[in-house]
Amino acid sequence: MAELTVSVDAMGGDSGPGVVVAALARSAVRHPTVRFLLYGDEGQLRPLFARRSKLANKVEIRHSPEAVRMEDKPSQVLRRGRKTSMWHAVEALQKAEAQVAVSAGNTGALMAVSMFQLRTLDGIDRPAIAALWPTRRGQSVVLDVGANVECDAQQLVDFAIMGEAFARAILGLERPTVGLLNVGAEDMKGHDAVKGAAHILRDCNLPMEFRGFVEGDDIAEGTVDVVVTDGFTGNIALKTAEGTAKLVAGFLRAALRRSILGRVGAFIASGALNTLRRKLDPRAANGGIFLGLNGIVVKSHGGTDSVGFASALDMAIDMARADVMAKISNDRQALELASAPAAALGGALGA
Amino acid sequence: MAELTVSVDAMGGDSGPGVVVAALARSAVRHPTVRFLLYGDEGQLRPLFARRSKLANKVEIRHSPEAVRMEDKPSQVLRRGRKTSMWHAVEALQKAEAQVAVSAGNTGALMAVSMFQLRTLDGIDRPAIAALWPTRRGQSVVLDVGANVECDAQQLVDFAIMGEAFARAILGLERPTVGLLNVGAEDMKGHDAVKGAAHILRDCNLPMEFRGFVEGDDIAEGTVDVVVTDGFTGNIALKTAEGTAKLVAGFLRAALRRSILGRVGAFIASGALNTLRRKLDPRAANGGIFLGLNGIVVKSHGGTDSVGFASALDMAIDMARADVMAKISNDRQALELASAPAAALGGALGA
Repeated sequence: MAELTVSVDAMGGDSGPGVVVAALARSAVRHPTVRFLLYGDEGQLRPLFARRSKLANKVEIRHSPEAVRMEDKPSQVLRRGRKTSMWHAVEALQKAEAQVAVSAGNTGALMAVSMFQLRTLDGIDRPAIAALWPTRRGQSVVLDVGANVECDAQQLVDFAIMGEAFARAILGLERPTVGLLNVGAEDMKGHDAVKGAAHILRDCNLPMEFRGFVEGDDIAEGTVDVVVTDGFTGNIALKTAEGTAKLVAGFLRAALRRSILGRVGAFIASGALNTLRRKLDPRAANGGIFLGLNGIVVKSHGGTDSVGFASALDMAIDMARADVMAKISNDRQALELASAPAAALGGALGA
Repeated sequence: MAELTVSVDAMGGDSGPGVVVAALARSAVRHPTVRFLLYGDEGQLRPLFARRSKLANKVEIRHSPEAVRMEDKPSQVLRRGRKTSMWHAVEALQKAEAQVAVSAGNTGALMAVSMFQLRTLDGIDRPAIAALWPTRRGQSVVLDVGANVECDAQQLVDFAIMGEAFARAILGLERPTVGLLNVGAEDMKGHDAVKGAAHILRDCNLPMEFRGFVEGDDIAEGTVDVVVTDGFTGNIALKTAEGTAKLVAGFLRAALRRSILGRVGAFIASGALNTLRRKLDPRAANGGIFLGLNGIVVKSHGGTDSVGFASALDMAIDMARADVMAKISNDRQALELASAPAAALGGALGA
């Protein structure tokens, strides 16, 4: 009997189901007690298992010939996409056949399909996408990195709660620190949503280590464990950081290649430089986690390879084991209770 | 007779006027025909020139004992800051005694003082702060990096016009390409302001190479020469990039130090690694340029040293020579003319 089951959309990424199956092979070695439901075109999938008989025992292929394309609008997928591999992969959660779903498909469609089938957790308006971010002190959680382009104060507060629960579950921290991303640390800085969220988080009675505002450079510094922002800013910050890391690595390569001494030094230090390369490998932290739903969905980067997709599977498995959802639900209810007297008081004063 | 005059706030930075005077010495060597007006506390400034008699000939000290502090609110400075060195440095532009002003002081106060005294260019609602950003292909202009936390579509369009004129002047490009920073390249992505701005820029008849939406990783890639965004997102992207570059450099140092071969290799390749260090030196691109005013104001980073402040002076001098303002004014008027028939038509249809 399997410890847990992961449902996988085989048709989601840019590079086709071959990458997904190769990733399953990697992940199955690391997690021998996990079982996989694989949704996709059986005709394409079967041959990929021809030489993987061990893996085949752990994977159940479920024929799902249609696929969501990258250019499909979320609304189209909700109307006409119920036979797609993405739809079925999420449906497996709703039917309790799997504990976590992974797809490398169209992010907007995956979010729409997940919200439609799984619904949000009690008290959570909108789910967020969380990312694990390498920092000087280890890893931090950053959310939202792309689900909600506009957010009000209460949504940012919800993201703080979800991110904090996630950090406890995945990073194993007892009391993760939380900060709101802003353009300055002073109270007067920023727009209404961040100021309002800071106000709520400071005054609520949640047992949360809220540290106020943090700035862009605090993310890599690891100043706080959880960085909360709207999906527009978070997505741009994440991609800007990826682009910068790639640029610096490129500058390093170019500088070392330009001279003979540079090449000799690089050869001698190649072990150290390979350590650096592994550390900067964007595939190692591949996977955005959808938080705030009645079910765990992990989005892999669309253009990743089998190493990256396997990282997304690993993250999904960690999530399923850590019971993040129960932690989020508890905190959200505690906030309701904590703010209820204030709301009642407001009502009384208004009457 | 001096070719041009730069007014300098000596009391602005975190590290005091010593850094500013040392920076003047560097810049004066590079720009022998430039003259400086230096505003600050004469008692502190005079001794700094004791051993710099050559420099003293090019610098006119103007006693200005009060200083704007980092924690002062812009509104306070407008009410009570008229005797500060910052106020006087900007006033020199308004009185046409200098062609460009440089300060390392409080950004919000400097923007307020500049707007109050210089006023915005005809047709420009709000000024923006532009930054030069190192990319794989050279340098790009990114704006706004902090003046306006919320922007509507028309403001983003104004930023595109200002940034394009700036890129022509400073980067020497004949037809700089322009992109709007967004969370995806597709038309449907993003919030109303970016979608609206894209619509205006696509349909207006400005001779601008508008390339639509770009994403966070496109900045370092150099996909376009001018990246346009609101001041909230731009500030966070800039600081996130700075933090990431610092993080990667730290990872490199740590990786090389960890083993003997790493250290030997680093020693042999030290020339190449120093090239990299210079390339990543944040002081080399120090200086945010206030665009959209009747005068050029350059903001140096508050915590910089004399090398960084000298970079800001260099940028200011380049700006003054390039006559950026005239270019912005011309384009803004062209846009008014191009959109005038459409507005008239809208009026007629509404009537």
